[in-house]
Amino acid sequence: MTRKKKYIGAHSLSEHKKLKGKIEVVGKVHLKTLEDWSTFYTPGVGAVSTHLGKTPEDARVYTIKRNTVAVVSDGSAVLGLGNIGPYGALPVMEGKALIFKDRANIDAFPIVLDTQDPDEIIETVVRIAPAFGGINLEDIAAPQCFYIEEELKKRLPIPVMHDDQHGTAIVVLAGLINALTVVKKKLSAVSITVVGAGAAGFAIAQLLKKAGASDIRVTDRVGVIGKHRAGLAPHKTVLANLPTKRPRAVTLLDATTDSDVLIAVSGPGTVTAEHIIAMNSNAIVFALANPTPEIMPNIATQAGATVVATGRSDFPNQINNALVFPGIFRGALDSGVSDITEDMKLKAAYALARLVKAPHKDNIVPSVLDGKVAKAVARAVSGFKK
Amino acid sequence: MTRKKKYIGAHSLSEHKKLKGKIEVVGKVHLKTLEDWSTFYTPGVGAVSTHLGKTPEDARVYTIKRNTVAVVSDGSAVLGLGNIGPYGALPVMEGKALIFKDRANIDAFPIVLDTQDPDEIIETVVRIAPAFGGINLEDIAAPQCFYIEEELKKRLPIPVMHDDQHGTAIVVLAGLINALTVVKKKLSAVSITVVGAGAAGFAIAQLLKKAGASDIRVTDRVGVIGKHRAGLAPHKTVLANLPTKRPRAVTLLDATTDSDVLIAVSGPGTVTAEHIIAMNSNAIVFALANPTPEIMPNIATQAGATVVATGRSDFPNQINNALVFPGIFRGALDSGVSDITEDMKLKAAYALARLVKAPHKDNIVPSVLDGKVAKAVARAVSGFKK
Repeated sequence: MTRKKKYIGAHSLSEHKKLKGKIEVVGKVHLKTLEDWSTFYTPGVGAVSTHLGKTPEDARVYTIKRNTVAVVSDGSAVLGLGNIGPYGALPVMEGKALIFKDRANIDAFPIVLDTQDPDEIIETVVRIAPAFGGINLEDIAAPQCFYIEEELKKRLPIPVMHDDQHGTAIVVLAGLINALTVVKKKLSAVSITVVGAGAAGFAIAQLLKKAGASDIRVTDRVGVIGKHRAGLAPHKTVLANLPTKRPRAVTLLDATTDSDVLIAVSGPGTVTAEHIIAMNSNAIVFALANPTPEIMPNIATQAGATVVATGRSDFPNQINNALVFPGIFRGALDSGVSDITEDMKLKAAYALARLVKAPHKDNIVPSVLDGKVAKAVARAVSGFKK
Repeated sequence: MTRKKKYIGAHSLSEHKKLKGKIEVVGKVHLKTLEDWSTFYTPGVGAVSTHLGKTPEDARVYTIKRNTVAVVSDGSAVLGLGNIGPYGALPVMEGKALIFKDRANIDAFPIVLDTQDPDEIIETVVRIAPAFGGINLEDIAAPQCFYIEEELKKRLPIPVMHDDQHGTAIVVLAGLINALTVVKKKLSAVSITVVGAGAAGFAIAQLLKKAGASDIRVTDRVGVIGKHRAGLAPHKTVLANLPTKRPRAVTLLDATTDSDVLIAVSGPGTVTAEHIIAMNSNAIVFALANPTPEIMPNIATQAGATVVATGRSDFPNQINNALVFPGIFRGALDSGVSDITEDMKLKAAYALARLVKAPHKDNIVPSVLDGKVAKAVARAVSGFKK
């Protein structure tokens, strides 16, 4: 595995070196004649500028705004690599811009920030927002990601989404819907443990609750986040108040014992066979740390799990945000909404789940190669038929 | 003329409406196979991110940085339209991005700002700078444009250029070099008046001085900016100390009397036939306000001017920044310099002038349609032979 990983890394480095940037900015028109110049630049453009000076909301009609998303990161939590700063973040954000275009024909541009101060991040994004129709926050560490997203949603009239939270939560819910079909259990009845209280864990727990789950707990390094814990950070206080049928659970093993679903978004080694063995029969295990899952699929299966998902493309059931963010922004941009609501997220998850016609244990989510995904998610989110 | 202008404006509005943005962000690669995904996104991109987290200067090798320029405006002085804000500025900045790509294969992206506070503009540009290899400031009003550019040049390790200043100054110098050849006069000997002490006027006077002019004065609404004026703004104090052979000139007519060159960058109506009649024979007049020049070319010619230039494409001798900014950034990006120096600006102007093989009174600068321009400017600026 290490050898393969080394090979992929070396190959990726050399391909990136060849490309010198995975995206480019191109004109939709050429400047061949003086008439082209006077239409698309001065003096003709003056009429467009004058109009937009008076009627800024028409930027969606006359400029790039309607189809353009900023992919914003401070590089504080890049992939599983930690705080590697804006330059470390840049190739990932370019990759996201590539995916936005490839999957949903969205013009996305990477904005990597030379600050990690939450208020400076907020100010900066607000100030550069006019050219953009949406803001995709990416790879910003918890807990500041919660405050940054919340403030930006309040202050900007365009959709803002922290993908590490909501993109992940949506694809997890989609996968869980189909996994529950496979094991013939109901979301409202199952007992769920979320391992990891970062950006993803927080948003997953919230969305599962919204979708009807009635027994959820989230664990962090200390154990179950419950009312017994003193001095919790604000977002953990929210988690301590999730609906749960086992308020006395303290350890991760307490949490998984006789439970049905385990969703790990933490890091390698946090989940062991013992945790899975303690679960009910027909257990569902999502081990989503990348590239090394919390528990390897073969071990989870041996320990009794029926449906196992990871974040990796070389195992079945890849839980990948790329199934979500292109379509959800496509839908939001097309419908011109000012916000991505909880309702839109639920619709996106159900639309994604429905794309798998006959779910079975090794097929609970569509492939990232499936060209229908973004369109289906966009349609569900926008409410449009086309 | 009004009818034609109306037609151009209406045509431009309808073309902009069709396009919904003049530029788009496209991938240089496609995501067709799982191997594509793992090379250009996770897990492969992790190797690139890890490398750049440790070696940020290699962003020029592995990312878009080396070929990417931010076109930044606060919309405070858009074309001749005044302070029409970021949405009014956006179609112009998209137009510049289009020209950057069309002429110099540079990936430029419009950043229009929801602030006009100079310190907030500086902070914002510094924070978003990591993804960019250069910053083109545009349509920012004087005098704050001087402070903003100066601070950004100090704080950023990449080239920063306010095009309204230096792009204009370079193309004016290029045109003047050839105009002086036509009338057989020398830059070091002629008497020059610059009408207008805004961004363009300030930079033109500075660059002409650097090029060897020995008798320059600048006028504003009050008259000549000289040592007799009390309470001058800082940039006007600089102008009051330009080399001049007529320190007692007070009015614009004092300034143009027995002079050789008049360069107006102010607004319609500031220059009259009387000012031209007072000039020496073989006078050179640049009336660069757009779309309505300070004095119409036929009136300037009747008043005795030998060479007349404007900013317009429908008269001979169009003094257009677009002859400069693509090539100067191309040269700066290719050579990896951290700054655009006075020396590079002079080289750009001389290279541009040399492209006109046999200057005559109606041909002192190349056409914007001339595909050789950007390459010649870039070569001069970078010092590269290719």
